[in-house]
Amino acid sequence: MNSVPGKFITFEGPDGAGKDSVLDAIIPDLRAKMGDKLVVTREPGGDPIAEQIRDVILDPQNTRMDDRTEALLYAASRRQHLQDVIEPALARGAVVICDRFVDSSVAYQGAGRQIGEQEVFALNQFATNGRTPDLTVYLDVPAQVGLDRIKAHRKDTQYDRLDQEETAFHDRVRAAYLRLAQANPERIVTVDAMQPLAAVIADVQAVLTENIPR
Amino acid sequence: MNSVPGKFITFEGPDGAGKDSVLDAIIPDLRAKMGDKLVVTREPGGDPIAEQIRDVILDPQNTRMDDRTEALLYAASRRQHLQDVIEPALARGAVVICDRFVDSSVAYQGAGRQIGEQEVFALNQFATNGRTPDLTVYLDVPAQVGLDRIKAHRKDTQYDRLDQEETAFHDRVRAAYLRLAQANPERIVTVDAMQPLAAVIADVQAVLTENIPR
Repeated sequence: MNSVPGKFITFEGPDGAGKDSVLDAIIPDLRAKMGDKLVVTREPGGDPIAEQIRDVILDPQNTRMDDRTEALLYAASRRQHLQDVIEPALARGAVVICDRFVDSSVAYQGAGRQIGEQEVFALNQFATNGRTPDLTVYLDVPAQVGLDRIKAHRKDTQYDRLDQEETAFHDRVRAAYLRLAQANPERIVTVDAMQPLAAVIADVQAVLTENIPR
Repeated sequence: MNSVPGKFITFEGPDGAGKDSVLDAIIPDLRAKMGDKLVVTREPGGDPIAEQIRDVILDPQNTRMDDRTEALLYAASRRQHLQDVIEPALARGAVVICDRFVDSSVAYQGAGRQIGEQEVFALNQFATNGRTPDLTVYLDVPAQVGLDRIKAHRKDTQYDRLDQEETAFHDRVRAAYLRLAQANPERIVTVDAMQPLAAVIADVQAVLTENIPR
């Protein structure tokens, strides 16, 4: 066993919560301090098999994809990325920051697509074999505010099938995130993403300073 | 609801049990009698999304594929094939004969790759949303006999990663099939596939005659 265990941190939030902007703001500083003890990733994370799986999910031709097929493919991509990227980094004692993980599937597939939050959670337990983040930073924003932000920046946003969904979908996603945060207070820290970006960044930095081992 | 419910029949067995030869022998006769009331399929069954998923599983480049990733991909391919091919056929009252289904994953991924039979069964419950075959014909043969048959016909057998596995793997697969047959006597009919092929075919025909509605 490794004497310096790594730390697994995930970032979550509805579309338009500002996750990308926050990560862009905080990573360079952390990188300068931590060097190769920091691994920043997101699924499929450059893993060739996970990439192939993601290509099937996002193929615009695949409009007939069943919701459960999609959830299974996200779980498959997650599994491969976890085994090839995250677990080896944690094993050598690195801090891993991952943009979205199981909570996203519970919120988007479980609640958004209405497969069922518990069912999607159980599916992802198979995929992760029980690996859970040590800390999850959840950027909370009402669905409509997030959607309005996305529309304002539409030209910067990659088109995918999720963007075709309606406000009700995003309301369900946010409600599921709030339930997850309430059910997992020891793991999930909620940051108010309605604040100006600078304040959101400051809050996130404070959470990380408290939680990343020196 | 349909007044003539369909019937869902699966064929299972270890490699070399003779499943393909038996199906080749019995299908033409059934087809002549039943016409479009008979649908014969196997995953991915020509479904374009299921085909894409299968391509990822069988890509010889993907030697680093994790066992759980593989199980998730088989489940995803199964889900799409079920929704696009099997369920519509059952809904119009057809008899569907499917070459391999959930039992294969329980045996091959659960027992063969040692992920755990219960875990792989639960994963597949997510994929099938509880759809279970009405009848499963299990062709039983000891692992070594099946492997010897495959080696004798190697030039006719498509190369895939499973064929690289060892006898112990196939012993676990067969043992799992026997456990499934014992646990599900109301669904699974075991046919002794050590018999000469003509006798196996006769046994299977008798089972189908008894179970396919006129």
